[in-house]
Amino acid sequence: MKNAMRAYIDAFNSGSAEAVAALYAEDATVEDPVGTPPRHGQAAILDFYRGTIATGAKLALDGPVRGSHGNSAAMAFTARIGPVTVHVIDVMTFDEAGRFTSMKAYFAPDDITQSDQ
Amino acid sequence: MKNAMRAYIDAFNSGSAEAVAALYAEDATVEDPVGTPPRHGQAAILDFYRGTIATGAKLALDGPVRGSHGNSAAMAFTARIGPVTVHVIDVMTFDEAGRFTSMKAYFAPDDITQSDQ
Repeated sequence: MKNAMRAYIDAFNSGSAEAVAALYAEDATVEDPVGTPPRHGQAAILDFYRGTIATGAKLALDGPVRGSHGNSAAMAFTARIGPVTVHVIDVMTFDEAGRFTSMKAYFAPDDITQSDQ
Repeated sequence: MKNAMRAYIDAFNSGSAEAVAALYAEDATVEDPVGTPPRHGQAAILDFYRGTIATGAKLALDGPVRGSHGNSAAMAFTARIGPVTVHVIDVMTFDEAGRFTSMKAYFAPDDITQSDQ
């Protein structure tokens, strides 16, 4: 599971929405950010990552990926989009094949900051 | 919500299981670690924190607490128990009064490391 979490960061940073979407199960859900309507299924997920990757966002892990004693894992990371920084924690659940069945991204409006540099 | 998350860290480190349990709603659940049977209700939660605090564990946040666009928040932290280090991510949900209605702690056996120092 931790390898899949790190593969997600790498696939995102490579700029390939297809590579990111391929980490998901066919009927997976993405709730990003938590508290907004989830996207369902590969097509909607691919569309979502095409949009977010097009912003030029790059992700960097904040510390080690955390596992669990079940079928889920979590990671803290920082997304940088030009001068904008977003602090995020993602929680994924997994199927037997090691694909994501759900993703929840925790960040609030005040987790987004902008620097002048 | 973020203040309550930080209050949780402070209450835990103060050594008061009562102060930690008081941050929870009456019928809250604690799944720590995720993948093990949840504890239900204030009495079970108080009992759980009496046990964990008695280990001498101290918690330190790894970066900022993350909010959401709903009634939940997440934080990455490191627990230190003597030479033992545990990397954890906690996800909490909240009621209208700002108390935790659920807590899920993400860590796997391999998130626990022991140093010789």
